[in-house]
Parts: sequence; structure tokens; C-alpha cells
Amino acid sequence: MKKAVVLLSGGLDSTTTLAVAKHEGFECYALSFDYGQRHQVELAASKRVAKALGAAEHRVARLDPELFRGSALTGSAAVPKLRREKEISDGIPVTYVPCRNLIFLSFAAAWAEVIPATDIFLGINALDYSGYPDCRPEFIAAFENLVNLGSKAGQEGARFKIHAPLVSMTKAEIVRSAVDLGVDLSLTHSCYDPSPEGVACGQCDACLLRQKGFKEAGQQDPIAYAA
Amino acid sequence: MKKAVVLLSGGLDSTTTLAVAKHEGFECYALSFDYGQRHQVELAASKRVAKALGAAEHRVARLDPELFRGSALTGSAAVPKLRREKEISDGIPVTYVPCRNLIFLSFAAAWAEVIPATDIFLGINALDYSGYPDCRPEFIAAFENLVNLGSKAGQEGARFKIHAPLVSMTKAEIVRSAVDLGVDLSLTHSCYDPSPEGVACGQCDACLLRQKGFKEAGQQDPIAYAA
Repeated sequence: MKKAVVLLSGGLDSTTTLAVAKHEGFECYALSFDYGQRHQVELAASKRVAKALGAAEHRVARLDPELFRGSALTGSAAVPKLRREKEISDGIPVTYVPCRNLIFLSFAAAWAEVIPATDIFLGINALDYSGYPDCRPEFIAAFENLVNLGSKAGQEGARFKIHAPLVSMTKAEIVRSAVDLGVDLSLTHSCYDPSPEGVACGQCDACLLRQKGFKEAGQQDPIAYAA
Repeated sequence: MKKAVVLLSGGLDSTTTLAVAKHEGFECYALSFDYGQRHQVELAASKRVAKALGAAEHRVARLDPELFRGSALTGSAAVPKLRREKEISDGIPVTYVPCRNLIFLSFAAAWAEVIPATDIFLGINALDYSGYPDCRPEFIAAFENLVNLGSKAGQEGARFKIHAPLVSMTKAEIVRSAVDLGVDLSLTHSCYDPSPEGVACGQCDACLLRQKGFKEAGQQDPIAYAA
């Protein structure tokens, strides 16, 4: 069985990505990060999801939160609420975390070399694309080139492949894929600013995009919202 | 004063690189990593060096050692001893750590975005080039491209520059540069397999290359060796 490293935050997108990788026949090694994100509850979600979807292993790597200072996801800046779609897609959001996907992918590549595996999955998609520079297809292509150039495995003939199966999907299409693949979406967590008990705020960009996706897919979102 | 992030292991090469960055007028933010390397004593060296060379800040980021399993530098495999120069330069050494420079550079880029800085220095050189895929100029060029593409700062017009001032130098030239810049090389640590007290073994690749460099530069190596 071919092995793959799957970046897993426990949100809708990465959970669906894990289901896609599993569906494609990969034995999945799920990788999550504790980087001092204010929505630490997503780590609990990632554990539930990895277990429910039968990941061969799930690892949570701790990263020094100080290196990510300056993002609304890690610092004390307010998470924007109730923004309209136009605002959400306009420019790079304050929830951008410096070089986050670069660091996540670098760790995934390191772990892949150890396992060994040459396939890495991550759940970036077209909606993220609009704002985050590290969610674009050209970023993924450049990373794939770099890791093949700069790793022992790549230099010894292995070809790393970075899979971003959701990259051209809308949130509605992602919801439909997840439902088609039988994923229990009640396990997932998307909110950037949950209550201490982990209840989604219903007003941050992540909640709004998620709700819109479920609505357009004609599906009921199984998680609770505070507002 | 222009700011730069400098990757600092506390060895001869990264210490010289820090001195070069300082000499070029940069205010230096030194970044070291605790990744479970068996030569943890290098972290003490990095602290001494950062202080002696007047770094504006020195940060040691802890990384999950499990992600690097499988290298002689982090696992239980033996560090090769008394290899001849031909052997040292032949193929990728067992001391290769999966995607290490990729991860180090990714963190440096994240910290640079936070500081903010656009200049990153690292001490790779021509001798490393022979064995490690992530010490080659084309790897550095590909990383520079990637971080400009995948970061907020890069997309908003900043141009990241990755400096590898030692890349085409021999160890002898590095020693001479360090001496010319007035660096106290007794503060540095290069050995992959030191005694518990931190004394260099004198037989691993790092020790042999260092000793050869000092000899060819006509300089006395100020550190002690066990053999």
C-alpha cells in the first residue's frame, strides 16, 4: 500500500483531503501542528478525524509560536467578523500566518523522507487562493520542484508529488465530495475564533465560508454555532 | 540599519556567515534550532557566538525530533569516523538530516516576515555542496523564488534575498575570512559526535574538514580535540 503524508488541521478542507487520499488507496500519515493558534480546539478535531478516517499514524508537531507573531490567528489582534464575500476575497487577510504552508509542507517532506513516502496531500482550495499567497497552484508547483531538488530522496531518483485535490473546488463542491466519501463532518472544526468550549463563532471568515459551502451544497452543517 | 535573519548553528561556517552579515552592515537576528541533534553542545556555542558578535536577538526554536528520525545526527546510527576526503565527498552522507535546510530556511523566512526583514543568511559552502542536496546554489535559488511567491511580504512587493556568502569558498578561505573579520573561533563548535563535556572527537567528517581548513589556512585551531 502506497504511503502518503497528509496535512490535517481538522477543518472541512483537510478532512476532505484525507478522505480523498484514503479513497485513492494511500495509507495515510496525518500531520498536524500546534503553533499556538488561538483555535487550539482544531487539534482535538484533527485527532478525532485521523482516528475516524483510519490514519496509519497521526503526529502533532509543536512549533515555536513566537516565530509566527503578528497574525490574527496567533496574536492578540481581533479576528475579523461578519465580512461580506467581497471583503473576504480582497487582499491578504490579517489571519495570514507567516510562511505557514511553506513550513507545514517542509515538515511533511521531512517526515515523508523518513517514512518513506513521496506523496504529500494538502487541502488548499480556490477560495483560499483569493487571499493567501501560499495557497496558489504556482506555490505548490514551486515547492514540488524545490523538494525534489533539495532532498536526498529527490536526488536519488524519488519524485515527490504534492497533491492539492481541492485546489479548484468551491466550498460547496468540497462539502459534496466529503458527503460522497462518507465523511462525518460533525467531527470537523473550521472556526478561527471559537468559544473556550470549542463552539464555532459563526461570524469569522472560516465560519462564513463554511456555512455558505453547506448551503450551496444543499447540506445541513452538523456542527453548532454560537451565532 | 537593515535587518537580517542569520541561521546560526555555532559552527565555523555559520559563525563566519554571521560575521560577514554584520560586516555588511546588517542588524542580525540569529536563529538556531534544537531538533534533538546529538551534538546539542552546538546550541551552547550558538549562544556564545550570538552574544560575542552582537546579534540583536538570538532565538532557539525547538523542533519535534521525531520528524527527523533516520539521520546519524539525530538517531542511534554511528557517526562515520576517520573517512578520507574522497569518501567524505562521495554521495549523500548518513549525517544528512531530512529536509533540514528547507525547514530552517522556512522558519527564517517566517521570522523575517515578522521582524520584518527581507535578507536571510546561511552558511552553506562548496564542501557541503559535494554531498548535501540542500547545500547547492540551485536549491538556494529555488527557495528564494518560492518564498517570494508564497509569502505575504513577497506578494506585496518585498524581495527576499537568500545570502550564502561562503557557497564558493573552501574551508581554508572560510577560516581566513573569519580571522580577517576578527572572529574568536574558540567559541565555535563543529563536531558531530562530541564527548558529554562537549570536546570535539577529531575524527568525524566535520572535525576532519575543519582541521584541514585550519591547516591549509596556516592557522591554529583554538579548540581542543579528544583525538
